[in-house]
Amino acid sequence: MAAHYLIIYGSISNHRRLRVMHGHAWQQAAAVCRVAGEPLIVEEIIVDPPKAYEIRIKIVCTSLCHSDITFWRAKVATAFPRILGHEAYGYVHCEFLLFFPIPWGHGGRRDSGCASCRVVESVGEHVEGFAAGDTVVPTFLGQCDHCPGCASEHNNLCTTVPFVFGPGMRRDGTTRFRDAHGNPLHDLVAVSSFSEYTVVDVTQVVKIDPAVPPKLACLLSCGGSTGVGAAWRVAKVQPGSSVVIFGLGSVGLAVAQGAKMCGASKIIGVDMNPDKEEVGKSFGVTHFVNPSQLGNSSVTEEIAKLTGGGADYSFECIGVSSVMTDAFTSTKPGKGKTIILGLEKDNEPISLPSLDLLSGKCVMGSYFGGLKPKTDVPTLAQKCMNKELELDGLVTHEVGLQEINTAFDLLLQGKSLRCIIWMDKDK
Amino acid sequence: MAAHYLIIYGSISNHRRLRVMHGHAWQQAAAVCRVAGEPLIVEEIIVDPPKAYEIRIKIVCTSLCHSDITFWRAKVATAFPRILGHEAYGYVHCEFLLFFPIPWGHGGRRDSGCASCRVVESVGEHVEGFAAGDTVVPTFLGQCDHCPGCASEHNNLCTTVPFVFGPGMRRDGTTRFRDAHGNPLHDLVAVSSFSEYTVVDVTQVVKIDPAVPPKLACLLSCGGSTGVGAAWRVAKVQPGSSVVIFGLGSVGLAVAQGAKMCGASKIIGVDMNPDKEEVGKSFGVTHFVNPSQLGNSSVTEEIAKLTGGGADYSFECIGVSSVMTDAFTSTKPGKGKTIILGLEKDNEPISLPSLDLLSGKCVMGSYFGGLKPKTDVPTLAQKCMNKELELDGLVTHEVGLQEINTAFDLLLQGKSLRCIIWMDKDK
Repeated sequence: MAAHYLIIYGSISNHRRLRVMHGHAWQQAAAVCRVAGEPLIVEEIIVDPPKAYEIRIKIVCTSLCHSDITFWRAKVATAFPRILGHEAYGYVHCEFLLFFPIPWGHGGRRDSGCASCRVVESVGEHVEGFAAGDTVVPTFLGQCDHCPGCASEHNNLCTTVPFVFGPGMRRDGTTRFRDAHGNPLHDLVAVSSFSEYTVVDVTQVVKIDPAVPPKLACLLSCGGSTGVGAAWRVAKVQPGSSVVIFGLGSVGLAVAQGAKMCGASKIIGVDMNPDKEEVGKSFGVTHFVNPSQLGNSSVTEEIAKLTGGGADYSFECIGVSSVMTDAFTSTKPGKGKTIILGLEKDNEPISLPSLDLLSGKCVMGSYFGGLKPKTDVPTLAQKCMNKELELDGLVTHEVGLQEINTAFDLLLQGKSLRCIIWMDKDK
Repeated sequence: MAAHYLIIYGSISNHRRLRVMHGHAWQQAAAVCRVAGEPLIVEEIIVDPPKAYEIRIKIVCTSLCHSDITFWRAKVATAFPRILGHEAYGYVHCEFLLFFPIPWGHGGRRDSGCASCRVVESVGEHVEGFAAGDTVVPTFLGQCDHCPGCASEHNNLCTTVPFVFGPGMRRDGTTRFRDAHGNPLHDLVAVSSFSEYTVVDVTQVVKIDPAVPPKLACLLSCGGSTGVGAAWRVAKVQPGSSVVIFGLGSVGLAVAQGAKMCGASKIIGVDMNPDKEEVGKSFGVTHFVNPSQLGNSSVTEEIAKLTGGGADYSFECIGVSSVMTDAFTSTKPGKGKTIILGLEKDNEPISLPSLDLLSGKCVMGSYFGGLKPKTDVPTLAQKCMNKELELDGLVTHEVGLQEINTAFDLLLQGKSLRCIIWMDKDK
């Protein structure tokens, strides 16, 4: 028998808005991508309550990553309508409810007194170690700490909740989102942070020190960690070594910071945009190469000149197959490591000269910079707080959820690094 | 002023043959490849004396490796006429000379007495640590122990005498071989072991315990070491792990032995030749997959079934681009390592699915199994003597130098693993 209430509720940190609760589902705002490549539509949607092993997160801020653009363009794993976004910061949702029994309704009240204040926990069954109000970042990779992937020091792919690109990847294969008409909305990598609230598997939620500024924590949710981790955990950059970074976007600049933190003595940035020389230097880049200004020389030749035969480490942070090949040929014979971070824009294969590979070179890919999210993200946050890492400069723009398409325009035009999208635009 | 002598000389170990010495150059037999892809011609050639940093080696036995076939077919680094061969065993040359001054000649004798016995050292200036009669194997990679490559634990490419595929690669860029008409003969990877004598840079000569049987030492000069090293030093195969080997030729079977030595629990051999199932099992292969007998299933699917999602390590030991891709896709997402050992027959690039790489997979190439020759070959020889490694079964045929084309036929027809070519066929 259905209970009928008019419910006024408010978030612990935000009492200003009134909403309607559908059972335990919330009506809320989200930016929905209804058609690939077209502007997102901010609309009221319904988010279902968390199921077992899930946490409902109140998103404080999110930011736009190039991978969101790739999915938005529908080059990979198409599914619409869809809620994009995977780089975010928030807290474990906790609402207090004021129950006003509606006189004309049937059925008993859910508590013995009227207008009582009740807390609705937003964690599902079997969730341990999280309490309402915990500050967290969602991550697109999970960490259960029990599966063979998590148990291996060489692997950061949790097999309990495997990461796949397709939508609807929560443990039961369903989405937690519906539009106002009740139609399902697909998610993105089981995060979908372009939404005031989201529901994420407990393996994909990392507790973060509340002292960490929200914008910084947001960066560590994906791009910042991916870049730093690639230098730190994947390449294991050695002190005194040479590094070349193809693409000085947010991830590439984070690689520069990671390489600097590891003690690299030469950090070469490669970018077609001349403005990136100045930006790169503020992140630790020591030399800049603009491929469009090399005349008859190739990038590979230029890197060989700068490094005495090839870089020790090369990072591809763009996602273009031909650049991946350039990154590879720019490394030192015998030991050069190439780390692929870019999601290939057209899903093209990487082509590597076989004789060059035989010399002892190595090509590695990684998601999330090879990091185990729950283990490593808090460590990186601490390094940021200690100023061992300086990622603040990655935030170039800030908008509210209603202006989310501005964030897309800025990134598409190469005008932004990271644009923070605040759910409460007055913040 | 030229000295004119009739010189009768004999090797310390072989007094049966008489030769003419041209100055300090030796006239000797070698198998010469005059035209790409045509039978070798065993002919008398002249080998020049060693220059600085060089050692003249009396080859006891050599064997035919698939890379010789690649160069013979002229798919890589064409140059003819050429002396092929790079997998061998021998000793530092030492001849004694009986000088008979020729009465009709001009010029003084080189010593004060006639018919005196003299030892001609076969090491050039600046060669240290080698004495006449030392048992040795030549290796196509050098190790000087001083350059940045040798100093790095992650690199086995010596930069003092860099390895390149082109001919004429001794330090001064010249060859030590001439035919009977005085025309130069190109060498192969600065070894050229299809010759009774050769001259090799000191960095490319490894001393080996004389107790090691010549055939076994010969295998460790290239193929045996390459396979074992790939598992041991490059992949660093972990105990209990799963391994798949594409191509059960000599190198692939040596990989199986290396993986077994490292404690792999599942060693899957992949080969189109059904006879390789039995052979593979004698080298430690635990499962066999014949791609031509899979029906609608692919090799990758079959490996995934056998390993619960993909092998920890995959080795490509054939040298075919499409097989390299199969080897890669057969590895475990998140941590799978693919090791490329085959020299691509047509110098085609390797094509890798970029999304699959991003999952955290790694592709590595290596020459000589990532081994530092002088450091690691004696260790492997010891492991063979202790029966930790059993490579004896790789020798399936033995011929004399005059029958060297039989060795080619056997390998081309897939009938042999390694055919040992003895310089003195009575041995």
